[in-house]
Amino acid sequence: MPTPNRPSGHINMAMTLDGFVARDDHSLDWLMKQPNAEDPSFAEFSARMDVIVMGSGSLRTVMGFEPWPYELPVIVLSRSMTTDDLPEALREKVEIRTDSPQDLMAVLHERGVRRVYVDGGAVIQSFLAEGLIDEFNVAIVPILIGSGIRIFGDINADIDLKQKSVQRYDNGIVRLTYTTAEGTGG
Amino acid sequence: MPTPNRPSGHINMAMTLDGFVARDDHSLDWLMKQPNAEDPSFAEFSARMDVIVMGSGSLRTVMGFEPWPYELPVIVLSRSMTTDDLPEALREKVEIRTDSPQDLMAVLHERGVRRVYVDGGAVIQSFLAEGLIDEFNVAIVPILIGSGIRIFGDINADIDLKQKSVQRYDNGIVRLTYTTAEGTGG
Repeated sequence: MPTPNRPSGHINMAMTLDGFVARDDHSLDWLMKQPNAEDPSFAEFSARMDVIVMGSGSLRTVMGFEPWPYELPVIVLSRSMTTDDLPEALREKVEIRTDSPQDLMAVLHERGVRRVYVDGGAVIQSFLAEGLIDEFNVAIVPILIGSGIRIFGDINADIDLKQKSVQRYDNGIVRLTYTTAEGTGG
Repeated sequence: MPTPNRPSGHINMAMTLDGFVARDDHSLDWLMKQPNAEDPSFAEFSARMDVIVMGSGSLRTVMGFEPWPYELPVIVLSRSMTTDDLPEALREKVEIRTDSPQDLMAVLHERGVRRVYVDGGAVIQSFLAEGLIDEFNVAIVPILIGSGIRIFGDINADIDLKQKSVQRYDNGIVRLTYTTAEGTGG
């Protein structure tokens, strides 16, 4: 639950009806082939966030994008990457850190960060396991793909959610928003 | 896809946001603790169906229920159970068969059955793998439980779905209805 001692954590993902965020090979072709797959509410969500936290896998994917897709400051949690791995142009925009999720939240709190957009399967799972996700935005894409990378992993205890909103788009994607039952989701 | 040669297959399940229909030990406590967990649309759904197909696991669960919970005829797909395993009172109501899903659909077609309610994890997965599910009713319960029995299993190819309706209930359960993209869902 969000406390005065840490920022709130937020996720915003698209998943198949069978619960996958990507195929086993990380492919998103199933998402890309949807008509108007862009989530119209993403800009509003993004504008509420102060920083994005992701893993090195996600960073490697977007590092090749031109232009750089994020306006928010990016923090990459990685024990293998260093600033030397970043292209010159990104060294101002991306900070690489090795903190645990809990420790990172404490550092960000010190910096005055209030809302953290947590992205990427492994990073989401580690934040979730430590109870640091307060708002869940899940766009359910009308397809079954059978296997792949799951958005939610093992947790130590059930997490009760509060259903906040439902949006249905013309392309059949349904966007569900939840907060943790105790939290406000910031 | 439904064809003139077979009945349409329909599922109607509740799952957690992380995609489980039961805990690993088959427990439904996470569902039972929801306020008003009964799906108000289930009666309407059930009235459209002609027969229920389930596995022996589901049958063993409901066999102890008093009164018997189904008005529809029940077919149990099992290679281990026989009519002798049924209490006298159920021998008129329950038919035990060993057909493959495809063969069962052909048999039911011969009998004039048009819509088959397919229930229970393993049975759903075998019908799904043979492309025999045309309508998906999935009630998403606002909870994460981390692990358990998944509703959807491996499939040979992607299944594109058509989003038909969204209902949000006061208890935070969201009921999503899909048909296969080609089918009508009966």
